[in-house]
Amino acid sequence: MSFRVEARAGTARAGVLDTTHGPVETPVFMPVGTQATVKALSSEDLARLGPRIILGNTYHLALRPGAERIAALGGLHKFMGWPAAILTDSGGFQVFSLRDRAKIDEDGVTFRSHIDGSEQRLTPERAMEIQRLLGSDVAMAFDHCPPSDAPRAAIEDAMARTTAWARRSLAAERAPGQLRFGIVQGGTHLDLRQRHLGELAAMEEGGRPFDGLALGGLGVGEAPAVMYDVIAAVAPAMPEDRPRYLMGVGTPQDIWRAIRAGVDMFDCVMPTRNARNGNLFVKGGKLNIGNARFRDDPAPVEAGCPCECCARYSRAYLSHLYHAEELLYYRLASAHNLQHYLDLARRAREMIRAGAIAAEPW
Amino acid sequence: MSFRVEARAGTARAGVLDTTHGPVETPVFMPVGTQATVKALSSEDLARLGPRIILGNTYHLALRPGAERIAALGGLHKFMGWPAAILTDSGGFQVFSLRDRAKIDEDGVTFRSHIDGSEQRLTPERAMEIQRLLGSDVAMAFDHCPPSDAPRAAIEDAMARTTAWARRSLAAERAPGQLRFGIVQGGTHLDLRQRHLGELAAMEEGGRPFDGLALGGLGVGEAPAVMYDVIAAVAPAMPEDRPRYLMGVGTPQDIWRAIRAGVDMFDCVMPTRNARNGNLFVKGGKLNIGNARFRDDPAPVEAGCPCECCARYSRAYLSHLYHAEELLYYRLASAHNLQHYLDLARRAREMIRAGAIAAEPW
Repeated sequence: MSFRVEARAGTARAGVLDTTHGPVETPVFMPVGTQATVKALSSEDLARLGPRIILGNTYHLALRPGAERIAALGGLHKFMGWPAAILTDSGGFQVFSLRDRAKIDEDGVTFRSHIDGSEQRLTPERAMEIQRLLGSDVAMAFDHCPPSDAPRAAIEDAMARTTAWARRSLAAERAPGQLRFGIVQGGTHLDLRQRHLGELAAMEEGGRPFDGLALGGLGVGEAPAVMYDVIAAVAPAMPEDRPRYLMGVGTPQDIWRAIRAGVDMFDCVMPTRNARNGNLFVKGGKLNIGNARFRDDPAPVEAGCPCECCARYSRAYLSHLYHAEELLYYRLASAHNLQHYLDLARRAREMIRAGAIAAEPW
Repeated sequence: MSFRVEARAGTARAGVLDTTHGPVETPVFMPVGTQATVKALSSEDLARLGPRIILGNTYHLALRPGAERIAALGGLHKFMGWPAAILTDSGGFQVFSLRDRAKIDEDGVTFRSHIDGSEQRLTPERAMEIQRLLGSDVAMAFDHCPPSDAPRAAIEDAMARTTAWARRSLAAERAPGQLRFGIVQGGTHLDLRQRHLGELAAMEEGGRPFDGLALGGLGVGEAPAVMYDVIAAVAPAMPEDRPRYLMGVGTPQDIWRAIRAGVDMFDCVMPTRNARNGNLFVKGGKLNIGNARFRDDPAPVEAGCPCECCARYSRAYLSHLYHAEELLYYRLASAHNLQHYLDLARRAREMIRAGAIAAEPW
């Protein structure tokens, strides 16, 4: 098995996921490298921040620069100069986000590229082929992610399609050593979630089940309390011996609650996107660097934070870069917010290994 | 004296300029940090590229974040985390670039901020005060830089004003250890240039002359051959024992020719601006990374180049980042182009110290 739980604290777990590009300690936050770069950061910056796994986007990379091109250049790791692990999503979430531009059938999805309007098609087989060409360490099954406000019947329909596509995803050829995760849908209906979880957890192809299971379709517009209820009910029911991945969620609070419920893996654009908008996470809150009071503040964004931004620069300097829209701002702010998320996961690992995880991280 | 010539090759010189933030070997190219950052680069990136002096812009920094604010925060070096030397321009060039927004009188210039339209005023005294507050190692006198197509009478008028302002600049209080350079105007008229050079070279206040002299008002629209003629005629006539600085020029070819004519110091936005537009300098030419042929090219931008971009990434990756407009592109391309300019100056220093400087650098 590629995953082992090494410590528990209530329903929370700390473990290790072995990948072809090294071990990944969980709980883990994966920075999002949508277009073969975590926005504003180089691979060297990232290495300094310390994550052992990042995420790449199948949809974006397939459209530009193209999966076959990346494969010819030696794969995604080499292309972006990243030595540790990469998880790729399947493109399902992005394709279904296009809504009017996507036409679904039982075999797959036809959609128009957001870049040039060209007609494109994704099927489970193609989504897995793209991820094989990219050479990611963890590939996600191709799923149908319905809108958060879809009626129950539409969610059941998407679930059934996701199950059929999961089987085809699991049967597809994989890159050497590539792990494969299935995605549980079911909206905010606990009975649907449990049913779908059962289907995916039991699924095997050639004697091999999914190496991990993910919760998809959360954090897509439902109320936070509703999302927490789903996570609290479903996460502990997910297979004990496989990693549990909550896709695309969320705030530091969301992640902490999910870790306590037993989730192991996370990704979210929030740290980098918020950074670009001036919102910087600090222990127990956040600050808006656009606020006038920071213009003369010689303190770092957060005292004691080891990131490049806090180690070398003041809030006043960051405020200046932000107001002047200097490119350096985006990098320093992104590095800081990612440090915060990575520290949060590190903190959870330490607490769980010490036997108890507090209600709040700091 | 703060400057000494240590080697000569024809009219070219190699020397050392001592500043309060360390010695600077000349010929030197100074990266432009307009708004307290060399665009897209951190001070750590810059330190890796190796320049011992960079440029800051009085006009931009005075408007935002403000000279008094930077002074209260400990000065420009501390503000931007830069440990080596900084030369600040006087704001003259920027103010006169505003044209319809600037109103000139004998005492100074009234203009409107490009940021918020507010009325602002620069005089020689205020320009020097701003540079004193910034705490730069080298401050430039406040000059009147006329348009390149101005009639001779207007250029003589600007020269006379620049001389009067130079005297006031020289008389102003300076930051501890701050050097002060005068700016020679005179357009493309060799007789005016020589006359103005004579005035500034002879000028003293309290027994102290300018520590260096600059050629202003070149590279502002005149034909390259005309500019070369001015440099070839005027540079060798500038005081032997003081550094000679050609402001805001230019291409690698321009700089090489000026070094051969005896110029010691340079600054230009070309390496970083061209980088952002896709133009990358390589030995003996340049390449446009937007060109389709680079999409599949696994080679670095330039083999053997030690910059972050060439050491870790391929042309194909850079091409992808460029087309995707990813922030990382601007940084990698800027680092590469600055490396090229810094290597050019390094090459000149080596050749001059070896006793001969070739007609072409590579």
